[in-house]
Amino acid sequence: METKLEQVLPQEIEARSFEIITEELGSRKLDEKYAPIVKRVIHTTADFEYVDNLVFSPNVLEHALEALKNKACIVTDTKMAKAGINASAMQKLGVEAYNFISDEDVVQQAKALGSTRSAASMDKAAELNRPLIVAVGNAPTALVRIYELVQEGKWKPELIIGVPVGFVNVVQAKEMILQLPVPYIVAKGRKGGSNVAAAIVNALLYLACGR
Amino acid sequence: METKLEQVLPQEIEARSFEIITEELGSRKLDEKYAPIVKRVIHTTADFEYVDNLVFSPNVLEHALEALKNKACIVTDTKMAKAGINASAMQKLGVEAYNFISDEDVVQQAKALGSTRSAASMDKAAELNRPLIVAVGNAPTALVRIYELVQEGKWKPELIIGVPVGFVNVVQAKEMILQLPVPYIVAKGRKGGSNVAAAIVNALLYLACGR
Repeated sequence: METKLEQVLPQEIEARSFEIITEELGSRKLDEKYAPIVKRVIHTTADFEYVDNLVFSPNVLEHALEALKNKACIVTDTKMAKAGINASAMQKLGVEAYNFISDEDVVQQAKALGSTRSAASMDKAAELNRPLIVAVGNAPTALVRIYELVQEGKWKPELIIGVPVGFVNVVQAKEMILQLPVPYIVAKGRKGGSNVAAAIVNALLYLACGR
Repeated sequence: METKLEQVLPQEIEARSFEIITEELGSRKLDEKYAPIVKRVIHTTADFEYVDNLVFSPNVLEHALEALKNKACIVTDTKMAKAGINASAMQKLGVEAYNFISDEDVVQQAKALGSTRSAASMDKAAELNRPLIVAVGNAPTALVRIYELVQEGKWKPELIIGVPVGFVNVVQAKEMILQLPVPYIVAKGRKGGSNVAAAIVNALLYLACGR
């Protein structure tokens, strides 16, 4: 059996992928403003369910791009999400990404409070006391902690990317974020992931730096 | 509206997730040997399609566990997949993970050959000349290069984890791996990802170290 490969130059693979995604979306109409984000998530997952899963708070794109232009930093709940963020796009914008999950103070606080390290890492992010975009691709406990911190008036992130994946409190944690008066991008339901979180951050970075 | 959260202790979230996955699989029968791998991929993606997508070469589990016990190293095609591999499980087994995508020699070779950095990083992995498990979650071009290296007699990895995601040559590249006389775990179709690659590696690590 011979396998037929499509001949595509390395630098054209991504554009060709987006073409295929657009073709297959067919008559499904995306909000033009959010199409680059939705398509990038589909590119990362090969899962067209995100057309319906992804929800955007009013004017979230303007908020996010403004924050990135003002060099808001990005905090993720996993090393994996951080590793998936495009370093050269960040460099272009002078933006930095952080993840605190393995920090000794976070590990200690999680133990002391009986919470998860992901939740404790959100407390550390809040204490940075600077404009930031928080991207949660894994831990619903991190989203719940963000909700509490915002409700208690202790934190107001520029943007919450709430796309954890899984089975325990994932759906609920996302619903909580939808109630907050903070700009958000959320993947409703169980699906999401560190890859989805990174894809959304990258889509925003590319829009901000005009890649 | 009040959101009801399920009360689960941090250290019990993963076990509870696996319980839910098992419940929802219902009467769908998984091969007992591969169930820990399939369930971990579902845990990572909330996508039950992997029950059908994941294919295993004969005796692949024995091969993989033997390789890990002999301290085979793990090479990934992305930084993200590497970042998702459980460091303490690797440490327990004395196993290390590598990713060469940003290495200067890989960048230069990709330019010189007009290939992708992912493909060139597989040449570097082959040249290590030591037992290794290769995990590809992103780049079908990496899988195609592995296929060529094996066919030319230049490389025989202990295990190929072939789970790239996407739209250009992804399905074909996976089909090519299924033809090789090398142990493999492949996610047929378009789906996969760095997160899926890391999840499969982690499932194998946990089986090997008896976590």
